[in-house]
Order: sequence, then C-alpha cells, then structure tokens
Amino acid sequence: MAKKSDSARKIQAIYYFGQAKTEGDLSLKSSLGGKGANLADMTGIGLPVPPGFTITTDVCARYYENEKKLPADLMPQVRANVATLETELSKKFGHKVNPLLVSVRSGAAVSMPGMMNTILNLGLNDDTVVGLAEATGNRRFAYDAYRRLINMFGDVVMHLEHSQFEHAFDKIKKKYKVTLDTDVPEDGMVELCAAYLDLVKKHAGKPFPQDPYRQLELSIEAVFGSWMTSRAVRYREVEGIRGLKGTAVTVQSMVYGNMGDDSGTGVAFTRNPSTGENKFYGEFLVNAQGEDVVAGIRTPLPVDTMPQWNKKVYQQLLQIKKKLEEHYREMQDIEFTIERGTLFMLQTRTGKRTGAAAVQIACDMAKEKLIDEKTALLRVPANSLTQLLLPSFSPEGKKSANVLTTGLPASPGAAVGQLAFTAAEAVKRTLAGEKVLLVRKETSPEDIDGMHSAAGILTSTGGMTSHAAVVARGWGRCCVAGAGSVIIDEQARKVKIGNKTFTHKDTISIDGATGEIMEGAVATQQGQLSRSFQKIMGWADQHRRMAVRTNADTPEDAKRARDFGAEGIGLCRTEHMFFEGDRIIAMREMILAESPETRQKALAKLLPFQRKDFIGIFTAMKGFPVTVRLLDPPLHEFLPHDAKGQAEVARNLGVSAKVVKERVEKLHEANPMLGHRGCRLSVTYPEILQMQVRAIVEAAIECRQNKIDAQPEIMIPLVGMATEIAHLRKLSEATIDQVRKEKKFSGKLEITVGTMIEIPRAALIANEIAPFADFFSFGTNDLTQMTFGFSRDDINSFLPDYLKSELLPEDPFQSLDTSGVGQLVEMAVQKGRGVKKGLKCGICGEHGGDPASIAFCHTVGLDYVSCSPFRVPIARLAAAQAALRQS
Amino acid sequence: MAKKSDSARKIQAIYYFGQAKTEGDLSLKSSLGGKGANLADMTGIGLPVPPGFTITTDVCARYYENEKKLPADLMPQVRANVATLETELSKKFGHKVNPLLVSVRSGAAVSMPGMMNTILNLGLNDDTVVGLAEATGNRRFAYDAYRRLINMFGDVVMHLEHSQFEHAFDKIKKKYKVTLDTDVPEDGMVELCAAYLDLVKKHAGKPFPQDPYRQLELSIEAVFGSWMTSRAVRYREVEGIRGLKGTAVTVQSMVYGNMGDDSGTGVAFTRNPSTGENKFYGEFLVNAQGEDVVAGIRTPLPVDTMPQWNKKVYQQLLQIKKKLEEHYREMQDIEFTIERGTLFMLQTRTGKRTGAAAVQIACDMAKEKLIDEKTALLRVPANSLTQLLLPSFSPEGKKSANVLTTGLPASPGAAVGQLAFTAAEAVKRTLAGEKVLLVRKETSPEDIDGMHSAAGILTSTGGMTSHAAVVARGWGRCCVAGAGSVIIDEQARKVKIGNKTFTHKDTISIDGATGEIMEGAVATQQGQLSRSFQKIMGWADQHRRMAVRTNADTPEDAKRARDFGAEGIGLCRTEHMFFEGDRIIAMREMILAESPETRQKALAKLLPFQRKDFIGIFTAMKGFPVTVRLLDPPLHEFLPHDAKGQAEVARNLGVSAKVVKERVEKLHEANPMLGHRGCRLSVTYPEILQMQVRAIVEAAIECRQNKIDAQPEIMIPLVGMATEIAHLRKLSEATIDQVRKEKKFSGKLEITVGTMIEIPRAALIANEIAPFADFFSFGTNDLTQMTFGFSRDDINSFLPDYLKSELLPEDPFQSLDTSGVGQLVEMAVQKGRGVKKGLKCGICGEHGGDPASIAFCHTVGLDYVSCSPFRVPIARLAAAQAALRQS
Repeated sequence: MAKKSDSARKIQAIYYFGQAKTEGDLSLKSSLGGKGANLADMTGIGLPVPPGFTITTDVCARYYENEKKLPADLMPQVRANVATLETELSKKFGHKVNPLLVSVRSGAAVSMPGMMNTILNLGLNDDTVVGLAEATGNRRFAYDAYRRLINMFGDVVMHLEHSQFEHAFDKIKKKYKVTLDTDVPEDGMVELCAAYLDLVKKHAGKPFPQDPYRQLELSIEAVFGSWMTSRAVRYREVEGIRGLKGTAVTVQSMVYGNMGDDSGTGVAFTRNPSTGENKFYGEFLVNAQGEDVVAGIRTPLPVDTMPQWNKKVYQQLLQIKKKLEEHYREMQDIEFTIERGTLFMLQTRTGKRTGAAAVQIACDMAKEKLIDEKTALLRVPANSLTQLLLPSFSPEGKKSANVLTTGLPASPGAAVGQLAFTAAEAVKRTLAGEKVLLVRKETSPEDIDGMHSAAGILTSTGGMTSHAAVVARGWGRCCVAGAGSVIIDEQARKVKIGNKTFTHKDTISIDGATGEIMEGAVATQQGQLSRSFQKIMGWADQHRRMAVRTNADTPEDAKRARDFGAEGIGLCRTEHMFFEGDRIIAMREMILAESPETRQKALAKLLPFQRKDFIGIFTAMKGFPVTVRLLDPPLHEFLPHDAKGQAEVARNLGVSAKVVKERVEKLHEANPMLGHRGCRLSVTYPEILQMQVRAIVEAAIECRQNKIDAQPEIMIPLVGMATEIAHLRKLSEATIDQVRKEKKFSGKLEITVGTMIEIPRAALIANEIAPFADFFSFGTNDLTQMTFGFSRDDINSFLPDYLKSELLPEDPFQSLDTSGVGQLVEMAVQKGRGVKKGLKCGICGEHGGDPASIAFCHTVGLDYVSCSPFRVPIARLAAAQAALRQS
Repeated sequence: MAKKSDSARKIQAIYYFGQAKTEGDLSLKSSLGGKGANLADMTGIGLPVPPGFTITTDVCARYYENEKKLPADLMPQVRANVATLETELSKKFGHKVNPLLVSVRSGAAVSMPGMMNTILNLGLNDDTVVGLAEATGNRRFAYDAYRRLINMFGDVVMHLEHSQFEHAFDKIKKKYKVTLDTDVPEDGMVELCAAYLDLVKKHAGKPFPQDPYRQLELSIEAVFGSWMTSRAVRYREVEGIRGLKGTAVTVQSMVYGNMGDDSGTGVAFTRNPSTGENKFYGEFLVNAQGEDVVAGIRTPLPVDTMPQWNKKVYQQLLQIKKKLEEHYREMQDIEFTIERGTLFMLQTRTGKRTGAAAVQIACDMAKEKLIDEKTALLRVPANSLTQLLLPSFSPEGKKSANVLTTGLPASPGAAVGQLAFTAAEAVKRTLAGEKVLLVRKETSPEDIDGMHSAAGILTSTGGMTSHAAVVARGWGRCCVAGAGSVIIDEQARKVKIGNKTFTHKDTISIDGATGEIMEGAVATQQGQLSRSFQKIMGWADQHRRMAVRTNADTPEDAKRARDFGAEGIGLCRTEHMFFEGDRIIAMREMILAESPETRQKALAKLLPFQRKDFIGIFTAMKGFPVTVRLLDPPLHEFLPHDAKGQAEVARNLGVSAKVVKERVEKLHEANPMLGHRGCRLSVTYPEILQMQVRAIVEAAIECRQNKIDAQPEIMIPLVGMATEIAHLRKLSEATIDQVRKEKKFSGKLEITVGTMIEIPRAALIANEIAPFADFFSFGTNDLTQMTFGFSRDDINSFLPDYLKSELLPEDPFQSLDTSGVGQLVEMAVQKGRGVKKGLKCGICGEHGGDPASIAFCHTVGLDYVSCSPFRVPIARLAAAQAALRQS
C-alpha cells in the first residue's frame, strides 16, 4: 500500500494556469480534460483567461479506486494553488475584503456537454458576500451571486430538488410583484439568500458550509461524483465514449457577465456550425452569466449584433477567433465573458458541427492553408455525410405547405412525424414503428434516449446552442429550437400553435434548415450536394485504395449509385425481381412444379423478365462490374401464408387450394435462416440456376452486341463446402458455354463465377473454396448471424439488455465485430489468397457502409466494399480515411 | 503421351499364382484386390488353390483414364500368363482336347460382396465343350458348364435380361417334365446350350464369341465396367468406401463342384460369425457350383455334417482353418470346392461378423495368443458394440408370443415392424416415421437402400451366407433368412404364414438370434453383455487417455450409464426437469410473470423440485463430476401453441387466455435456434440462473452433509462473448457464496463454472473466454448447425440430394466435420489452453458417441467425451483405439 501511494504521488495532481505560471498544455488533455488543457493552452498563447488550476483526471481515478474518497494529499496542494491565485489576483479566498471567488467545473478528455456539474461563485459566504458587495459597489450583484452559489451547491453537492429553490424564488418574485429574475430588487436578493440558506438547512439536514475551503473540497468531490451518474454513463454509452480515466476539475477565478449593462456573456463558434461558413457565429446576453445562454432561459442576441453594444470587444473577439484557428487549426467553440468591459475567455474546444459544416470547414481550411488535404479528409466524420444526403423538403411540397410558425434552425434536415411529448413516449412509439417528433419546452440530458429515437426535435425555448440544438447537430438529427409560439401542454398531450391545436395523433413537419414548422406531412426530397462535398469526394477518391461498389437491384438504384460515385454493383439481389406483376405468378408456378420439366416450363416464363432486368442494370453500370447473386431466399417467401392468398394463388395457377397449402406447409422451416436457401436451392433445383445464368449470359451478349460493356459476375450464395461451389461453377460454366453456342457469340465475354463467404465454415475452409471461386464477397449480415448465433429478426428480445449491461459494445449488425466475425473475414482472405494469389475480395453486407467496418476491411486487404447507394459517399470517404490512417 | 504409357508400363500389370511361380502376396492388396492378394497368399503358404493370375487395379484405373479401353499392352501379357497356366495344368486354352477353363472374377481392395460380376467356365465353345465332355467323361456336366457360361456371359458382358435365359430353361424343363435344374438330362442341357446361343444372337444382335481369348478380353472389360455401375457406386456410398483405384480381375483355372456326387462346393467361416464361437462354421452343397450356395437357391447343409459325406475333406478343411488363422491371425471367410474328392480353396478373406462375434473372437484370439491385447482392441469396430447393446425380446414377451414359424437366425437382434414388400416401400415408409420389416423372397444388391432403412429383414429363401444375411450382419441389422414357410405375394402385398395372412398394415416381430417369427409386437429389452465384452471394456479402459462421461438428465439414466462405465455426467440438461406434473405449471407461471418479483415467486416453487433432482443425480454419480447445464431452450417451448392448451394454462394460472396467447406470440421467433435462449435467458432473467445455481448448491451441500461426494460443475450454455461468461460467472459465484452463508456451510465445496463452446464466435475468441471458464465443453450439435448454417430440423429438405451427389460425404450431425467444425474445436482448445494451461476440455454433443469423432477428439487433446448412456461402451472402446492408433 505504501508503495502504491508513493508511485501515485509521483504523478502531478494539479496544474496551474495564469500569469504566474502555466504548467499544462494540450498534450495533457487526457489528464487535464479538454477544458483544462484548453484553458492552459489559451493562457499559454496569451489569450485573456481568468487564472486558475486543474486537478487531473488521475485524481478522479484515484478517487474511485479509493472508495470515493479524495486522496489525503490533495487539499494541501489545492491550498498551495489557491495561494498562487491569491497572489496573482491580489485577492484572498474567504476574505471579507475583496474576496477571491472561483468556479469549479468538470472536464473529461472528451467533451460531454451538459453532462457534468458546475458550481460558480465559490468562496462566497455570509461574510464574504458583504465584502463582495463593497468591493464591487453592487450589493444586488453580490447577493445574486451568493444565491446562485447556494442554489447550485444545494443542487449539485447537497442534492436538493431544484424545484424547491424555484418555489422560494417565485415567492420572492410574488412578494415584489415581478416576473423576471432580473427585476428582483437588491433586498429581494438578500431575502432570497436567507430563504435559500434556510431551505438547505431544512432539506439537507445540515447548513450550507460557510468555510470556503470546505465548499471547495465538497465541490471537487461532487464533480468527481458526477462522472458516474447514470446520465453521464448513458451519454458515454450513446456516444460510444470509452477508455477515459475520469473527469478533471478546473478551479478558476470568477469573472462576471452580470455586473451590469457593461458586462455580458456569450458562446460562439469560430465558424458557422450549421453550414460551415467562415463567419464568427454565436450569441451573447448582456448582464448575464454563461449558464443563462446555454440553458436557453433567455433568448440571446446574435453575436454579429455585438458591435452595436461594444465594438472594441467584438474586434478583440475576431482577433481571438483568428488566433485560435491558427493555433488549433480547427473550428473552435468558445465561451467568453465581458466583465465591466473587459473580455475574458472561459473555454475553447473543437466545435461540434453538422456534416455539411464539417465538409465546408475542411474544404475552406485546406484552401486557407490552415490544414493540408489529408488532414481535411480526416476531419470529416464519414458518417456525418448522411446529413448532407438526408432529405430536405421538396420545393413543391414547400410551396403548398401551411407554415404554422418559425423557430430557430438548430439542426438541418427535414423531419415529418406525429407528436410525442416525452422521451419515453418517443422511444416507445418509434420502436412500434411510428415516426415521431419529440416536442419539449426544452430538452435535458435525461431526454437523450427520446431525442435519439425521434425523427426530429422541436423545442419552444432555448437558442442555437441549447442542449437540444447541440445534441441534435451532433447526431445530424433535424431540430427546430426556441419556437416560442408553440405552446406545449405535456400533461394534456396537446400543442397549440396560433389558434390550432395538435395532439399526439397529428402529424407536423419541421425544417431544421429554416426553422419552419408546417402542418401535416410535407413532401421531402433527396439532399443537395455542395461543391465542397464534391471536392472532398474527389480527394477521397485519390487517397483510397479500396473500390466502392453499391448494392442495387434495379436500373434506377444503379443509376443513383453511379451518381454517388459507385464503381460497380457488389450485390445485385435477384429475388426482388420476382415479385412484380406476372413474375410472381410464374415464380409460384415454378415453386409448385412437381417435376424438373414443369419447373423448367415455369422458369422459361421468368427468363425474359430476368434478362430484361439484367440488360437494364448492365447498361446503367456499363464499364463497371455487376455481381449478380443467384436466388437466395427460401421458396416459401414467394408464397402467401394466409388462406385467402393461397386461394388466389390456386385460382391463378389452376390448382386446388389444398395443393398450395400443402406446398406452403412442406416448405415451412423451423429455422428458415439455416434452411433450404442459397446455393442449396441450386443443388436441389439446378433448373433455377440454369435459368438465371442463362438470363445473365443472354443479357450480356445482347449488351455486347449493342456495344455496351457489360461485366457480369455470377455470385453463388451460402456456400459452405468446396464441393458446392465446384458443382455449381461447373453447372454455370456449362450453361454459359451452351448459351454462347446457341447465340453463336464468339466475342469477348468474361463472366466470372465467385461466391459469398457468409457461412462460418466457408471462411474456415476458404483455401478449399478459392480454387473454384474467381472472387470472394463477404456477406457479413449472415456471417454475423451465424458466427454469433444471433437471428437478426429475433435479436431485439435480448439486445437491449446486452447493450445496457455493456455485454456488447454495440449492435454487431451495425458495426462489424472485428474480433469474432472479422477474424473469420481475415482468415478467409488469407486462406483464399494463400492458394490463389490476388484473389479479389469484397464485402457486400450492410457493414460495407459503416466507417469503422470499412476501416477494418481496408486493414485486412479487401479490394472493395459495397453498400446501399445512399452510403456510397460515406464509404468513399471512410475508405480514404482508412488508407490515410494506415499510412 | 509416349512418356505417360512408358511410365505406366513400368508398373507390373499381372501377377501369377500357382506352382509355377507366385508373384503376389497380401502386401499388394491395393493392386491385386482382396481376393487376388489372398489367392496369391494362400498359394504362397501351400494351400490347394487352383492356379491363375490377377490383373491389377491400376489397370482398371488406366481403363477409365483411357475412356474405357483396355491398355493396348494388356492382352499380350494375358496370353503369356495363360501359357504359364497351360503348362502348369497340362491343359490348353481353347483346345478341343482337355481344354483349360477359367473363371474371371472381380476383387477390389475392400470386399464388396455381390456387387461385382463374375463369369465362370470361360474357354468353352462349341468345340471345347465336346473336348470337355470327353476329358471328364461327363457330357451332361460339360453342357451344363457351357450353358452357365453362355448365361453369365450373356448377362454380364452382353447385358441380356436374365429372365430370357430363365424362360428358355423353363421351356426345356417343361419339355423334359422336371422341376429341378439338376434333373434336366444330358440331352436337355445340349438343347439348352443351343437355345441360349440362339437367344444371345437374337437379343444381343451378335453371336456368342467362340474365340476363348475374345471371351476373356470381353470379360475383363466387363469386370472393369462393373466397377462404376450405379449399384456398385451406391454400395460404396452406403459403406463409406472411398479412395480405391478400381477393381482387380482374377483369372483362375476352373475346378468343379458339380462333377457328380463326389463333388461339392461350400462357404465357411473359421469361427461362428454370429456368436464368435471358435467352431468351424459354414455350409456346403453336394454336386453344385459356388454360386448355388451364395445365391440361396438351394438350401445347403451345415458344414459340420460333412464328415458323413467325406470325412477326409472335412479333416483337411479343419487343418486349413488352423493354418489360415495362424497365418492371417484373423477369422476367415472361405470358399472351397471339392472336385471329384479333391479339395480346392477358391477364396479367403477376413470374415464379416456381428459385434458380439467381433468381441468374442478378439477376446478368444488374444487368449489363444494369436494376437496381443492391443490388436484385439483394434479388431472390434467400436460401432459394432451397438449390436451387443441392441434390444432383444424380453422373456415375458417371448413367453406369451405367438411364434408363427422359424427361419435361419441370420443376424441377431430383435425387430418389430409392419410389413414392407419392396425396398422402395421400406425407404418411403421409414422416412415417413414408420417402423417396417422388409419382407423379400431373397434380397439382391438392388435392395440395399431398403435393407438399410428397415428395422429388420425377413427372407423366405437363402441361407446364413445369402446376400441378406451377410449384409444384415455387417450392419448389425436384425435378419431372419430362409424362412421357407413364409409365402410372399409381393404383388398383392400379402404374406401367408401357415393359415394366417398378413398385409402391409400388420405388425410382426422377428428374432435374429433364434430365427423365430412372431405375430404382433413382442416386447423387447436391453441387450445382455457377455463376459468377453467386459474383458474388452477392461482392456479399453487401460489403454484410453480420455475419460468417458454420459449425457443424462435423471438419476435412472445416470445409474444406467454408470453400469455402462460412465465416469461422470458431461451434460445434465435441466429443461427436461420442468415438464413433469406441477413443475410445468410453475414454469409457465414463471414465463408469464411480468416482473422480477413475480418471476422469483414462481421460481421459488420450482426450486425444491430442481434441488431434489440434483440430489438424486449427484447421489447416483457420487465421486464423479456432474456438469449441469443451465436452462437452454427458448421459453416458448414450455407453453402450448394451440388455443385449447393455452386456455388450460390460463385456467391453471388464473389469467385470461388472451394473456397466454399474447405471451406465446411475443415469444415467437423467426429462427428460435438463433434466438432468445441459452445464457441469453440468464442475462435477461438473472432470477432463473440464481434459482438453478441455488438448487445445485443446496443439493450439493445436502449431499455433502450425508457424506455423498457431490461434484457439480455449472455449465453456462450458448456463450459467444467473454462478457457473457464473466457476467454470469460472477452472478453464479455470488449465489454460491450466498447459499453457503445461509446454510452456514463451511466444508469443502468446489463448484466449478464453465461454458459450452457451441457458437462459432466462442471458438474464435476462446482465449478471451478461457480466463472466466473452469472448463470448455464442446456442444458440437449447435456448433455444427451454426458452422454449416444448417438447421438440424430442416436439413432433410436438401441433405439427401447432398449425400446422393456426394457434395457431403456424410451427415455432419452423425460424424463430426473435422475440417470445418473440427477446426473450430481445435482452435478453441489451443486458444483456451494458450491462456489457461491444462484447461479441461470435453465434448457433449452427440458426436461424443461416434467413433470417428471420438478419434478426432483424442487427436486434438480433449480430456473427455460425453455421450448417451447406451453409447458409453462404444466411446470407451473408440477412445482406446484412438490412443492405440496414435501411439
């Protein structure tokens, strides 16, 4: 034990920042937290930062190791740092005359807005409040500061109900007949402090601590304690934040934006976080503390109106913006306060932004030579591109839309849904398949789940930097905030907008780009892609090694994917082609056939349809490969399971309903996922494969004859044994040869035959399969199902519990499980290429559009990824990022 | 090409055996076939073998490589060997005076009885038949031989219908007013030859070849051709015979058992192939050719009656028996012929035998010092022990049984079933779930499928060495042969026995040990185990490294398994315990519970039942470990799926039927195999695990207090992630500690916690799982399902096609797929032991009772196998054999 605390003591527990000395910088982010490191860093580059010191995250870790007790040697070090602060500022902590007041803030290495607790005005007590009143000549301000301290301390450290403080405040306001906090007179504030102190004593069972060092110690403990509250844990869960030691605590001398009309406070971004425009962007409030802006209680002014109030400060802010961006080479999110005309920087951090803004900023900064092209590419979170590709409202829809009112355009996108009034309701109804908008006065961290579920978020109070706005932008979720004319009655589940009332059954539409709130469901359209987006995509294409293909089953999808930059089709599912019109009748006739001959007859009817489909797809994808997967699903999927549907099929096919029913029953399987499907169908019904291959070959020949460069690749699904692919490859090749002969086509016609690797066994014996396969395409959906033993259709009965108790870090169908499923993928690539050098390998499961999975695919050496058309740009960028990160 | 045939020529194509020289021996079995090698070998040790020569299997392979043409250099070599033969025997091939006659027989390296074609009397033609008549002084015999040649040659080489020859024969018999072949006079035979020759010319379109060398060449080709007939291919399939080059052809000088009453022919085993008794055992026919015995047309005499006919020959046979066994150190199956009082050996090979005989013979030969203990162990096919363990009829059942008639006890066992009249019918009805007896006059290789399907086989003609008897014994299938009073009308699907008639709907019982045929279903009982069996088991236990446990869920099963030598329970399934009486009500109450509290209440009712079960099992297995698997199946399996059943449950539990129905619907899964089951249940409902662990611990403590050495092992099923086992191990250990505290039990109580490895991912990340597992138990049933992507419940829709087209060598649920599933098993063992040295590993899937799979388990270093009680002896023997084969 002695040894352990010795070694622990070696790590510096506290880092000072100020004119006296600045001990930390950005490199210590994991110890000082983002906020602490930035404050030290800002101080280091000469920005006006109120001095203070940061207690490291290691101390937080020791706090938890030590059964939630502060290390014994901490407070003496805190006192030493406070002494330095006192000297620098010529103030005294806990002294009646000119008292030093400090804030205590949390800050982990990763920003977690609104999650951790903050206490301001520490050092005030019944004595020092008098001193502060005298020093500032503003008694009302001093008691306002004191009541805020008691309130926050009571809240955060002593765990009192916030409503109790509100209730006491309301009483005072009533007494003085005012509605706004700012209108409460000096005496009212003094009375309020007394009332708050009584309240604390009554409800906490012990008085508010008058000893400033006791206040400080308890506050530090409270910040550490807040690291493991369920909402903080949940936030980290939702955001996928892992591996942190804890939170740091920054103790900083107070400055005040609420010392009068020459004071103020604000938050800003060095560039527009919604669009990326290179323009200082933010909000400020005159005579207010920072919390007032973030909490969204008062609606702040846009920062570009500041010159009208204080031109000098605005100029200073613009200079700081420049300095910060040159230093950090990133868009910054800052907090500042003006105390009696003097500007202080309270915080800077990398600003959250929308996908569009990320693209614009990366592009602009590269143009401005702040960063290079590679850095620009790495700056855009690939997934955030979804936001650019998200729908907006169509101009036609907009033209006829009834705009009820307008709020702040807090997070772009278009959302349509019925109204949900609580987070829980939003979660429940979304799970039930509804599309809902979460409608709240303002959101809080407790609402995270509901916000994540909802199609969009609408708040009636709060600004562009309110909780709802910040969180929604981070996710690319559409959000309209601060729509004051939306009157929400949560209890009655009703919303009044103007003279119209909407209930949970009514649908409205919100435009996150304009703030408009519209009645009913307004028509949406695909996202518009900016020039910067095209530039980023161009850079990405230069840096990636892997090709990006798409999963598309129709000429339309193929065309759209090409517009998005797809370089081929990695998965063309043929089963969807059998559902339209007459096709399904012929398909059912085929399934009901009793002999190969009658089956062939029915298949002959399907042939022209299939051939036509392929001609369309090959034409849309000319010059690029098209991987056609042969019929995969179990046949019962093509037959109706209800008596009425079966009767209709029977009528259509001229058989008895009993025959249809019996066939459906015969096709029933206990576990269809593991049943008679995939290449197993081709083994038992070779006629199906023969028809499909014939359609492919005939289509390819027709294309070639029309000078269209068709490049079909035949993909055999669900192979688990070398014998399967050997057998079916032979069958396919025989059909190819036969069709060539029939068509007397002697031109170039390279049709390759490969397989999906989607059964664990196929990966295990890939060296046996490779000799018969021209390519491997990893079907990671099924591979995940079988490797985990998870049925995707059934996983929801236990997945939520698994995610909640962290047994699974994330849904393995969303992001590839690299250690299990990925191990099989890597094994198959190595074993396959071990016997066939340069074997083409790709992925066509849905993981092909997930950036983390794409990075893995790059690492194990896949040649391409294939994903839905919509995710092609994401895949292009993610592939480039993977290549850049590896090199 | 030139090069190829050069190198081919280097391999000797023909091996001579006789007094002149003997070129081959047993070591050339793969080239000479079993028959050829044995004839050479027998000649080598001085037995009276008619001389001849063998064309190797390599020539057969060249025949197929060469598009079914004999190598050009073959016939010259044949002529050279014939010349040697002529010299040795002082006869001339194709010569009028004293002509040399030969047989042509097939023979692969592995015996395939009845599968390959044989032609006798080659060298006869219109000229030589006259010479033969003169040389033997027996014109009838000569023409009888000639008509046999024409018949067989027509059949086998020229592919005429056998019935056409029969028809011609019948005509002659009619003409001479006789019924038996042997009664046809000399002139009749001459006429028959003429009729046969006409018949050949008419139906084959070309005459019977008169040139003996042409006869020989065509016959050799026909033997080679028969290697790939569908029935030969099918036989190899059923028997799992693979990797052979082809068949050899043995050309041997003829000897005749049908030269009169001083001649005869027979087949015999050096020991009883049914019981293993060390007694010369067989049958012979006077004045007959060998075919007459095997085909079962005439019923032969037991060989021990031979002294009454020719004492000298019988003594000679006994000496040969001794010589053969001393030479081969194995029980032999011989064919012999007595030509005018002189004994000739035609064939010897290792004799097929029943499991009981295998055990007895191995034991006896070890006692007789013919072989050592290890060889004895390796001599008993482990799977053949099933036959010893197969049911026989109970004495009570027998006492009251109505014995209709008695046939030959051809293959032991007791079979009960409805009557099937064709092989196809037997296959179809067995697949439909019926138990049938295949009833045939005599069986032929075409019946293989049906014989394999049927519960038992009954024939009305043919002896102990008939096709039916030999094949059935090889499989351990119960068979009664040659029951002459059973009159079969295949067309009418009726059997008459005495004055009773039985149809396909009637059930009868046959006793393969006594030959009795009984009316109705007679009660059966477990097999009785001989003293030799116990001896073999004892030897096996000394030589095996792996322990053998059993899968048992009840004290009764546990006791039976201990009697069979099980050293613990490797899989105790707890779900079966929840179905009896009140338990299922409490179980359903648990499933319908809405909260953890009500669930706990229901579980509390199950606790005493479960504890009692465990006490019973621990007591039965005292001193041995008992691996208890926690609840595994999806909960819906405990609820009825029909409205009536649900209504009853609702009544029992005092809830509405709607509640039950809704719960059933909610529990419905698309793929229950991959659904909410196994440890996933314990994650979502920890109360279930807690109750089960509590029951285990309470039972163990109660046992210990009663001085019963309980050794429970808790097994967590369906683990796929390290987090699962870590979490559930912690939960289990907490429960164990709690119960110990509650019971104030401070004694020794080592309860280990391990996991099943049955999900591919678990094997892949076994190194992550091992730190939390005290043991691994491979659940190869589920592991096979997920590794192949096969649902065991649904596999029959395509498995038959897979086996038929040889895409799969065998059902992977029967015998472990070593290259795929086995790769995962090996990987898991290595990865697990890589982080936890000496980690205990076993198998509890059904493969644990399959000898080939057991050999694999030994190779990869498993510590134990666990199988059904009934297969424990098989596993003990297989484990010993694996150890012996490896060392």
